[in-house]
Amino acid sequence: MTSSASAIADQLTALLGSRGVLQHDADLGRYMEDWAGHRRGRPLAVARPASTEEVAAVVRFCHANGIRMAPQGGHTGLVDGALPAETDDELIISLERLNRIHAIDPISFTMDVDGGCILADIREAAQAQACFFPLSFAAQGSCQIGGNIATNAGGMNVLRYGVTRELVLGLEVVLPDGRIWNGMKALRKDNRGYNLRQLFIGSEGTLGIITRAVLKLFPKPDQTATALLAVPSVEAAVRLYGEARRGCSDLLSAFELIPRSCLELAFEATDQLSDPLSTAYPYYVLLEASATGPIELDTMVEQLLEHAMAQELLLDGVLAASSSQAERLWLIRESMLEGQRARGPHLRTDIAVPLARIAEFVTEASAAVEAASPDSTVLVYGHIGDGNLHYNILPPSQLPEADKHALLHDLEALVFSVLDRFDGSLSAEHGIGRLKQAAWLERVSSDELALLTGIKAVFDPDQLLAANRILPASGRD
Amino acid sequence: MTSSASAIADQLTALLGSRGVLQHDADLGRYMEDWAGHRRGRPLAVARPASTEEVAAVVRFCHANGIRMAPQGGHTGLVDGALPAETDDELIISLERLNRIHAIDPISFTMDVDGGCILADIREAAQAQACFFPLSFAAQGSCQIGGNIATNAGGMNVLRYGVTRELVLGLEVVLPDGRIWNGMKALRKDNRGYNLRQLFIGSEGTLGIITRAVLKLFPKPDQTATALLAVPSVEAAVRLYGEARRGCSDLLSAFELIPRSCLELAFEATDQLSDPLSTAYPYYVLLEASATGPIELDTMVEQLLEHAMAQELLLDGVLAASSSQAERLWLIRESMLEGQRARGPHLRTDIAVPLARIAEFVTEASAAVEAASPDSTVLVYGHIGDGNLHYNILPPSQLPEADKHALLHDLEALVFSVLDRFDGSLSAEHGIGRLKQAAWLERVSSDELALLTGIKAVFDPDQLLAANRILPASGRD
Repeated sequence: MTSSASAIADQLTALLGSRGVLQHDADLGRYMEDWAGHRRGRPLAVARPASTEEVAAVVRFCHANGIRMAPQGGHTGLVDGALPAETDDELIISLERLNRIHAIDPISFTMDVDGGCILADIREAAQAQACFFPLSFAAQGSCQIGGNIATNAGGMNVLRYGVTRELVLGLEVVLPDGRIWNGMKALRKDNRGYNLRQLFIGSEGTLGIITRAVLKLFPKPDQTATALLAVPSVEAAVRLYGEARRGCSDLLSAFELIPRSCLELAFEATDQLSDPLSTAYPYYVLLEASATGPIELDTMVEQLLEHAMAQELLLDGVLAASSSQAERLWLIRESMLEGQRARGPHLRTDIAVPLARIAEFVTEASAAVEAASPDSTVLVYGHIGDGNLHYNILPPSQLPEADKHALLHDLEALVFSVLDRFDGSLSAEHGIGRLKQAAWLERVSSDELALLTGIKAVFDPDQLLAANRILPASGRD
Repeated sequence: MTSSASAIADQLTALLGSRGVLQHDADLGRYMEDWAGHRRGRPLAVARPASTEEVAAVVRFCHANGIRMAPQGGHTGLVDGALPAETDDELIISLERLNRIHAIDPISFTMDVDGGCILADIREAAQAQACFFPLSFAAQGSCQIGGNIATNAGGMNVLRYGVTRELVLGLEVVLPDGRIWNGMKALRKDNRGYNLRQLFIGSEGTLGIITRAVLKLFPKPDQTATALLAVPSVEAAVRLYGEARRGCSDLLSAFELIPRSCLELAFEATDQLSDPLSTAYPYYVLLEASATGPIELDTMVEQLLEHAMAQELLLDGVLAASSSQAERLWLIRESMLEGQRARGPHLRTDIAVPLARIAEFVTEASAAVEAASPDSTVLVYGHIGDGNLHYNILPPSQLPEADKHALLHDLEALVFSVLDRFDGSLSAEHGIGRLKQAAWLERVSSDELALLTGIKAVFDPDQLLAANRILPASGRD
């Protein structure tokens, strides 16, 4: 370190003003804890630049003085990418004051926003112009678009609109030495040189700090059909998905697998919920289709359901008759997350498997878990249309806390080892950050690692930006 | 050069067998000329490996001996990326024998193909399984998927399905030193490390040779509506596009701008074509929508047209009543390209402009061209839904050939200088290759160039693979 923490804070204050720097423990709480409050880092201080130029100034200052930086958006990530290291030597650079929506263009279907804009605000602003920004997930009320882009966020609508990578036309990025890269194009097609935009997307802040973006918009759907469908098996759910794509002209906006156990967790968590169907079934699918223009969406979904019933892919189901009924169906999806949380420590995974092999994977993984820990409860739910499962495990409730953590650690390794046989991904949408680093490094080839390390060195030879996220920090300490 | 051309050919023959190497002038014709026969390179020889391992063996051999390589797919590119240099020292590596379709999975909606597969063959094979691979353009009968991926090809269906970048789930790539990078994942979501797949896509063969890919498929549309619409202006066409997206629930699969002058070129080129409308109009739009399932597509398009007529965005139009009528409408689009070709040397551009500014761009560019060369004819057509225009110019027909070329060169510079004021792209879909290199280098920032050069050096420090495409070759000669 080139100077003491308080001297650094003073110099930052000179650059950003007093609102731009936080250094006292009392102010640092939410910046230094992960979203669940389980893990905690020790930052040098928090810098809160309010413009791209201020971000660049902070980064130039850090670069000149060899200070490590931890860029932070809404801090809702699940792999500790935005959490500062415990080593007291990382400056958090929070984008929260960089939150202006610059323009919405309903003719080009584009939107120009700062990196610190809250996702929900972006969605609302688009809606006000009869447009739609499809990125959507539970944290949308506090996550920031810069973080969403840096982590290539997924969520509910991916099967129709793609991951974040497919929703970004332009970027402005502050590079690790403080230069500003201007890639703020509003073009749907642009084939000039290597695509740096795509390289920044998903690099989790390790190659640069995203300060501004041009987003792709869509027409706001003016009708939606939502249904909860009971299916006999995971395999039937996957086959139903193919039928639903064909039967609904790819107008599906969600297709979520929910096992019975998760439905029950939802009922536990939210009193006013009750089973929308009269019988219990092993698996459910929450299907949503949406459209604009003269389409008979309900009729379309009804025809699909009749067809699926005849093929024995479907056992029972309810199509929401009103938007409040649709909201109640979605409340099941949200409440089951609450229900899981209420059960205390549990294994959360975020894996992807080729669609056609999901059922086989679930069978094999569950057999392995059952053999290793018969009293644990497997919960498999997720964005099955994307092949993306949250294959989670609740440990036996009577187990002492410390044993729970050890068990869950072992079960994660077990699930990942099954996943390896299916050419799956141990991070479908959450990224690597610091939490998945060890498991990922065990599996990545040395050739690939050398390429990624080489790319990191082109952008950040001193390894000051988001060090030790994704790639292991080498050298210094 | 480490040894003579014929000694190299002998060593390659030992690696690939005699079918795997071409070295005599009589056999080299189509490999060394660009598609239009205007430009010609001088290769060392042509290597025709028949497997990924053979590609790797050839590349290892070249790497060990310091031999430059020019990867070549169907050789239909428009920027001379696959054309060998004139310097007699590049080995063409043709992928044409690597052309197996390995698997189609209609449940996962994926397809596993060799890099040398012809695009039309891929489309047909998908169709046979009731699936659809959307990439489509004039060269589809001879272009290869590896080249399409390397150049991030665009084409007709981009507004609905995205560019090639959005259609590829997995890749296998032979790196510039002959190692094989296995990224053959069939996952819709995968957030592990930097996305090398996206970096390879669009890198025009300069970072590796694409030998195999997993492609994303879609349900095969079972109904299509095609219409030729007369619009009063470019601006009306752009506004109509927004209305069409909303009115047709984003089920548009093509939205092509065609000026009257191009319609007339089409009539010149193809005798049996006649004007589908009774009056001549300044601009037309060729609209196509497609769907699966119970959608009244014709009714939907008819309602759109009524609505657009009421808003004065539409002057006249014809909705194809049969598939043969639809084919005749598409024949106009194809014949106008023939008609252009028949006029001899002309300026071809492939530019992108933000949608909302297209009309303004066309006005300014055309005023500049009119002032500089009043007897030239501007032809502006293209994928207007993507903001992608082919802003082409026919020089005055009586001009001597040499003067035509000089004039077109100047007019290109003029059009690009107008484009710069619109934050446009001088290569929306064709890439940079060698032909656009100078114009691109004039405009790219030195910071960006340094990053791209750094990335190239990570993959290919000796600059042996596709040297002098996109980035200027430095050093050696």
